[in-house]
Amino acid sequence: MTRTRPAPVVAPERPADKIRWSRKDLLGLQELSRGEIELLLDSTDSFKEVSARDVKKVPALQGKTIANLFFESSTRTRSSFELAAKRLSADTVNLDGSTSSTEKGESLTDSARAIEAMQIDTVVVRHQASGAANLLARVLDAGVVNAGDGVHEHPTQGLLDIYTIRERRPIEGLRVCLIGDILHSRVARSNIWGLTKLGASVTVCGPPTLIPAGIEELGVAVSYDLDAVIGDQDVLNILRIQFERQHGGYFPSIHEYAVEYGITVERLAAADPDVLVLHPMPMHRGVEIAADVADGPHSLILDQVTNGVAVRMAVLFHTCVAR
Amino acid sequence: MTRTRPAPVVAPERPADKIRWSRKDLLGLQELSRGEIELLLDSTDSFKEVSARDVKKVPALQGKTIANLFFESSTRTRSSFELAAKRLSADTVNLDGSTSSTEKGESLTDSARAIEAMQIDTVVVRHQASGAANLLARVLDAGVVNAGDGVHEHPTQGLLDIYTIRERRPIEGLRVCLIGDILHSRVARSNIWGLTKLGASVTVCGPPTLIPAGIEELGVAVSYDLDAVIGDQDVLNILRIQFERQHGGYFPSIHEYAVEYGITVERLAAADPDVLVLHPMPMHRGVEIAADVADGPHSLILDQVTNGVAVRMAVLFHTCVAR
Amino acid sequence: MTRTRPAPVVAPERPADKIRWSRKDLLGLQELSRGEIELLLDSTDSFKEVSARDVKKVPALQGKTIANLFFESSTRTRSSFELAAKRLSADTVNLDGSTSSTEKGESLTDSARAIEAMQIDTVVVRHQASGAANLLARVLDAGVVNAGDGVHEHPTQGLLDIYTIRERRPIEGLRVCLIGDILHSRVARSNIWGLTKLGASVTVCGPPTLIPAGIEELGVAVSYDLDAVIGDQDVLNILRIQFERQHGGYFPSIHEYAVEYGITVERLAAADPDVLVLHPMPMHRGVEIAADVADGPHSLILDQVTNGVAVRMAVLFHTCVAR
Repeated sequence: MTRTRPAPVVAPERPADKIRWSRKDLLGLQELSRGEIELLLDSTDSFKEVSARDVKKVPALQGKTIANLFFESSTRTRSSFELAAKRLSADTVNLDGSTSSTEKGESLTDSARAIEAMQIDTVVVRHQASGAANLLARVLDAGVVNAGDGVHEHPTQGLLDIYTIRERRPIEGLRVCLIGDILHSRVARSNIWGLTKLGASVTVCGPPTLIPAGIEELGVAVSYDLDAVIGDQDVLNILRIQFERQHGGYFPSIHEYAVEYGITVERLAAADPDVLVLHPMPMHRGVEIAADVADGPHSLILDQVTNGVAVRMAVLFHTCVAR
Repeated sequence: MTRTRPAPVVAPERPADKIRWSRKDLLGLQELSRGEIELLLDSTDSFKEVSARDVKKVPALQGKTIANLFFESSTRTRSSFELAAKRLSADTVNLDGSTSSTEKGESLTDSARAIEAMQIDTVVVRHQASGAANLLARVLDAGVVNAGDGVHEHPTQGLLDIYTIRERRPIEGLRVCLIGDILHSRVARSNIWGLTKLGASVTVCGPPTLIPAGIEELGVAVSYDLDAVIGDQDVLNILRIQFERQHGGYFPSIHEYAVEYGITVERLAAADPDVLVLHPMPMHRGVEIAADVADGPHSLILDQVTNGVAVRMAVLFHTCVAR
Repeated sequence: MTRTRPAPVVAPERPADKIRWSRKDLLGLQELSRGEIELLLDSTDSFKEVSARDVKKVPALQGKTIANLFFESSTRTRSSFELAAKRLSADTVNLDGSTSSTEKGESLTDSARAIEAMQIDTVVVRHQASGAANLLARVLDAGVVNAGDGVHEHPTQGLLDIYTIRERRPIEGLRVCLIGDILHSRVARSNIWGLTKLGASVTVCGPPTLIPAGIEELGVAVSYDLDAVIGDQDVLNILRIQFERQHGGYFPSIHEYAVEYGITVERLAAADPDVLVLHPMPMHRGVEIAADVADGPHSLILDQVTNGVAVRMAVLFHTCVAR
């Protein structure tokens, strides 16, 4: 049931302290070098410290303007970016794509150009179409940060997952299993790029209908049998079942999904006693994750949320300053 | 038509200047002592002064973060809290419950924990379910301020009503009549708790179908005949008819409601010449209140709105600082 | 096909440097003097410089509060006002008319009075009814800035169009053609008032069904034949086809509209080689304007957006300070 894993695709690289950030955009982890990823993770440390202070604010981006342009509603991710910007003292403006000028027949690039023309420094964009952020990055002088585009990438989620793991374990050589709907998951894709570049061994595990053909080419192992692989993992990163995309009959029923792939205390007993459990939220307790796992000692789920703000502060800072 | 009023339930207490605020939450006026209520009212004075300045801003909550989590839409109340926070220099983030992760199957407590994990100091929550704020207060380390939960309480509305009255008259011994839909009104409940604790005599008056059975146990008198009691009141606090909840045929028609319980200039002629008129807004002019009463010399309706920001500044300040 | 143009209605006036702004409101360009318009345009220069800085922020309106009250959704215009306010260091609050208390049966004036009672300095209002901003200005002590009311005026759009033109050419004696749906366009009306007061010669051009009867009385020429007049223009200000208002069969088809009135490179070849092209966005590329015109050397469309923030900074500053 487990396909063979190809050799890792990552070559050794210069240490992170020799790397400087020079990109105006963060579109995905695919195009970043190991050093660039490590730079973002390293600088996240100092931004995390800001949010732990009594006065959670630094003047780093005073007088800069960051626009959140969300074509898919996501209050949580938008708020995380908004707080990251505010704690850097940037001005923020929220543009809801669904009520914006695209409704009046405007193209995405015209919308983005008009936003940029208001002297926006960075546009944080979420869009249902894969590649939307890359398109905007090409037409704008402003920085573009991808907050999730279709099934392509969600790089800040990937970074915050990796940062959260790295707070507990070195990534090099770590065994990480991504569990669930790999097919529709931009979170999975960003995790795969980031983790493999940093030297982790990644396994993806889920129903055959939800594992895209050829994903081994990204340097991951594939399994359809969670119980067969759970004992060999250091980290379980559980993906959300995206019920809003489940029109295709990808699995027989929620109950059967839970039986096969839900992470329960019983199933966890077969795992390493120090295994780490992640989930990007929102969770369906009792489906992909049992309540006592979500709230249990292995869970880093709320750490992920906390680290999300810090990672986004690092990303906004570097992309703003690089321009 | 008037049931007998039980003896007041409030015992004498230490003066407010001996009281310190020690709660992380404001969930209702029921659980507050007289001293705690007076502390909030007293400190509202100084915050009201801030909003009257040319520069309406103090650095009291600089670097703190306040999240408005509204599951029922209420632009007015949300804005009042948002302005209160901004005038204290806090950072704010608005989370719309109806488009948030609860849509994706997430529980209320998971939503709240995720918000808190972004290092939020205080969560202001409005929810359609009575007890929602109390639930969140139990699971969160962050402060929780109840901005209205079901038919339970709306404590900042109660406080601003009492503060507005207290600017004109001492509350001790004052006769206050709450008029209208007592059954569905969290505003009525918070007024009853606060006013009786401060020594006012409270009468509730409305159609029998809209007065909950047993409400006398809260220490209030009950009347179904406004004209029989209006002459004995110092304050008329008129509740909004909640048309959105009137599926139950609680009264025959809007016209008949207006005839029986609408406050008109003619009806007011039978009241004390110094009677004070309050209404929490939005008003239905010509239904529960006539236009010339709303705009007349007895009306404190816009004072209530102004005082609402100041009361919320006091509440946010004390709950943030107590943590 | 071209009706005769009446004599200009504008008398000479004192130079702008003798004018001081004394209005609490900006409701339309109709009631402004030439000097007042020039004052706003002149002071826009310095505010535009702020947005070009690395730190795009000045403390001019520190501690002031500006409310955006939008009954028609317009993310773009609302964001432009919001950024203008934030770059002046004002606090802002966004009130969405469609989810606000008007839903609960409240009148527009009560909504506005309640907002004002929160000690708002300036209310920026967009409303579907012509005259809504004027109504609010009469009942409020707060300043009122009209962000578009029905088919009446959209004065900041008029000002930003004129400012954008004036950066390239003196307005006095300039020949400006407004093209398209004049009937439903508040942008057209504000342009006409502003441009004619400053001494421009204005022609309106569009299908007869979309040119209101009697518009010559505003001091403009009328044409239904774009090709007959395009050669005599210094500026083409192309209006958006408001498909959301096209229930009345005002023109046979979008294709025929594009053929008759769409600005293409071919059509532009007949115009002055230095002709300036404006459009308020959002654009329908291929309908009222061809893509290569929108992106071409004559186009000032993105300048308009940039200047919009600066014009709104000037307007918010003067109306706030005049109070």
